[in-house]
Amino acid sequence: MTLQSIDARTGQPLGPTLSSSSAADIDLAVQAAHAAFADWQASEGSSRAALLDALARALESDRQALVALADQETGLGLPRLNGELDRTAFQLRRFGVIARNGVPFAFTDDPAVSGGPPAGHPAMLRVRMPLGPVAMFSASNFPFAFSVLGGDTASALAAGCSVVVKAHPGHPQTSRRVHGLVQQILQALGLPSGLVGMVQGAGHEVGVGLIQHPLIAAGAFTGSTRGGAALQAAARQRRRPIPFYGELGSINPVVATPAALQAGGEALAQALAGSITLGCGQFCTNPGLLVFQRSEASSAFVQLLLQALKAQQPHAMLTQGMRHALDAGTRAQLAAGASALLHEPVDSLNPRPFLAEVDAATFVANEQLHEEVFGPASLIVWTESVAQTVQVLQAVGGSLTVTLWGADQDTPETRALVRGAMAMCGRVLFAGVPTGVAVTAAQQHGGPWPSSTEPMSTSVGDAALDRFLRPVALQDTPAWLVQRQGRPC
Amino acid sequence: MTLQSIDARTGQPLGPTLSSSSAADIDLAVQAAHAAFADWQASEGSSRAALLDALARALESDRQALVALADQETGLGLPRLNGELDRTAFQLRRFGVIARNGVPFAFTDDPAVSGGPPAGHPAMLRVRMPLGPVAMFSASNFPFAFSVLGGDTASALAAGCSVVVKAHPGHPQTSRRVHGLVQQILQALGLPSGLVGMVQGAGHEVGVGLIQHPLIAAGAFTGSTRGGAALQAAARQRRRPIPFYGELGSINPVVATPAALQAGGEALAQALAGSITLGCGQFCTNPGLLVFQRSEASSAFVQLLLQALKAQQPHAMLTQGMRHALDAGTRAQLAAGASALLHEPVDSLNPRPFLAEVDAATFVANEQLHEEVFGPASLIVWTESVAQTVQVLQAVGGSLTVTLWGADQDTPETRALVRGAMAMCGRVLFAGVPTGVAVTAAQQHGGPWPSSTEPMSTSVGDAALDRFLRPVALQDTPAWLVQRQGRPC
Repeated sequence: MTLQSIDARTGQPLGPTLSSSSAADIDLAVQAAHAAFADWQASEGSSRAALLDALARALESDRQALVALADQETGLGLPRLNGELDRTAFQLRRFGVIARNGVPFAFTDDPAVSGGPPAGHPAMLRVRMPLGPVAMFSASNFPFAFSVLGGDTASALAAGCSVVVKAHPGHPQTSRRVHGLVQQILQALGLPSGLVGMVQGAGHEVGVGLIQHPLIAAGAFTGSTRGGAALQAAARQRRRPIPFYGELGSINPVVATPAALQAGGEALAQALAGSITLGCGQFCTNPGLLVFQRSEASSAFVQLLLQALKAQQPHAMLTQGMRHALDAGTRAQLAAGASALLHEPVDSLNPRPFLAEVDAATFVANEQLHEEVFGPASLIVWTESVAQTVQVLQAVGGSLTVTLWGADQDTPETRALVRGAMAMCGRVLFAGVPTGVAVTAAQQHGGPWPSSTEPMSTSVGDAALDRFLRPVALQDTPAWLVQRQGRPC
Repeated sequence: MTLQSIDARTGQPLGPTLSSSSAADIDLAVQAAHAAFADWQASEGSSRAALLDALARALESDRQALVALADQETGLGLPRLNGELDRTAFQLRRFGVIARNGVPFAFTDDPAVSGGPPAGHPAMLRVRMPLGPVAMFSASNFPFAFSVLGGDTASALAAGCSVVVKAHPGHPQTSRRVHGLVQQILQALGLPSGLVGMVQGAGHEVGVGLIQHPLIAAGAFTGSTRGGAALQAAARQRRRPIPFYGELGSINPVVATPAALQAGGEALAQALAGSITLGCGQFCTNPGLLVFQRSEASSAFVQLLLQALKAQQPHAMLTQGMRHALDAGTRAQLAAGASALLHEPVDSLNPRPFLAEVDAATFVANEQLHEEVFGPASLIVWTESVAQTVQVLQAVGGSLTVTLWGADQDTPETRALVRGAMAMCGRVLFAGVPTGVAVTAAQQHGGPWPSSTEPMSTSVGDAALDRFLRPVALQDTPAWLVQRQGRPC
């Protein structure tokens, strides 16, 4: 099996043909990650921070070449890719701070209580144990931030885990270049090269082979619901199932009251059109669903949105496959009962924005309309009441985000909307647009199925660390182990 | 379908034939739990504590009748069942305190940081949302503590969830009596009866129907690996998969250095024999595997253990099915290469203790020997070195507990044993025996497969609450919602 990088803007081959990793390559990488884990799991927070800081610096030092290469492979443009590199370096340093502050070693000291049960109990210490080598599956749409040195790798390293990256075939050259930097840093710091391994391949074999390797202890994935579900199934078919953290597809409903749309007007329409087409709509938080209550104000807003969308010029999509999937997705929406408001089919790598509308009853009844359409496309669902809006959210069932415009006052209607949103997503925005996911303490990037496989966890923000640390209670702990203050021995 | 309570000591029917819940009964119970959830999820911690306290008092007030009934159905004896009722009441009150202290409403306040990304971000608030109605599957071996009002129900109610209990067919009368008490308390407090519903049935249909009901938001189960795996599969087959917290089978290795066995001597042998036969061995933390390094001291200890075991008189098992499964399990161990040290087949509801031995290489190579044998049975694995002991733990792969006797000094050998144990279990004991699971802050009752389906979670201890609260990030939260201080609206 071979692998070929493609120039996103021309569709032409970029650089030499690469070979896919064989089963032996995968085994070698995992064995090396397993060997590296033995010491890394017991490393000090300062050592982890030193590595993460050095990786951030390495990205920044090679910025110009990295961004140029990623731009060729993805077509995402220099401003966005420079910003993404900044974010990736920021994220590495942030998990460095978290490790230096001892968060992975936090423990609960639960002194003995004399007397018999249920109140009496022996001395207990609750600590957390790094899981082991993590299989990390890169995303197509973030060649830096959800790739070789993305948040999954940063949080796994901070937790004390080693990593084997499955590079995304959409940007193999960028992945190889970043992995080359990682290897230089590991060598410079005297750390084993297996601490961050990498495998690559265009088909499913490499990913399945990696997640099913007996020494892999967890999986972390960002990508489509179909791809994530397949890897999740493979993780479960193991003799010993392991945690699989998949961040999958999401349609990110934007719910707005007529009053909010009227107040927002032109500026809000521009912001929404920008969010729908940002990065050619290739964001997991792209607003794919607009849930508006029928009213004159809502209709007027939709006209403003239409004008704003028409003026947008989305760039080429990441791959030709994604470009075809976008057309298939919009066709499927129309076939399922939606009516086009903006639909200009073009035979080009650069798609045109798409907007359609449907009534709430049709939407609720038709699962096809709940599917993510990856690209600069959005579907308006017209509701007659707040109760019907809540029904629409229930029908969506799971989403990374819900945006609620017009929830400023505490009314029964607002509460119903907030409840309905919180019941089915990981993040509720009360202002702004859902694209843009802050790397911060309170972030939650994960929601009920189909938006993620483990909705209790997040793939962005400080709590992403928790995915790779398993609680262990130590009972009547000997003094030497108590003195390690939660550090694995 | 019908259901019949059986006197555990006589094998004779106890009380009238009961009818299994129909699909309509299940739907009714879940719909009622769903309706009750709407208000309960937004309830104050003090209301939750008031309910949990009242439930604890109700159990205590009806102690004599409850314990007598449970004793007939399970044969576990009055001292144990009185202790279990105490523990159940303690647990209810403890989760009441947790709710009153506002733990379910804990939030992360993450104020806005000005400037663009990655450092700048909007104001974020990280809160937790109760999942919804929980399907709670009772265990056979704890008619109070892992049943209608057990830890799963207590923690789910404290989290703001409603519950539908699937009563265990091994103690249907006790379950009905406890559920009757619950209904009295709900009525007295003006709470909806659907807050804690109950269904029952002897076959798989009722459990599968319950976990697959579209309005059920999570499952919590304590029982066999086979039963748990079947329900987990059913939970995953739903159109929307949900979290399924299964606490399954575990063989709980006891690892001891020759020096520790010599020092422990007769008293330690008595303690271990007591743990192996406690409750007729029907504990998820029963020490089913003894990993000893070959030495004169170890051999001498095994002789003491044999004598201590011979003197034990286990009571009747919970059900005749379990009695037969015990005999099948010990036969399978012998067929797989183990040699009997104590094996007195008896044709009685009360089994005799069983002890066998096998060398480490045979154990590692033979998966049959890694299976839990539920009852007063244990298997000695003889190892030649610390490294081989670690291999044995790796072969076991997942366990609720590991007991490590002789880890008092910080040596490379001790560290290897501690690492090996922590890598595959949820609790490491450095003294005492694994039976007895304290309901306390640091407890972790859950470990890698096959001991639980979600090894990052615990079914006992304060952190059991976390299973039913999903993180949600609120961005640019309106003032009225900020003022709710993490409480759902």
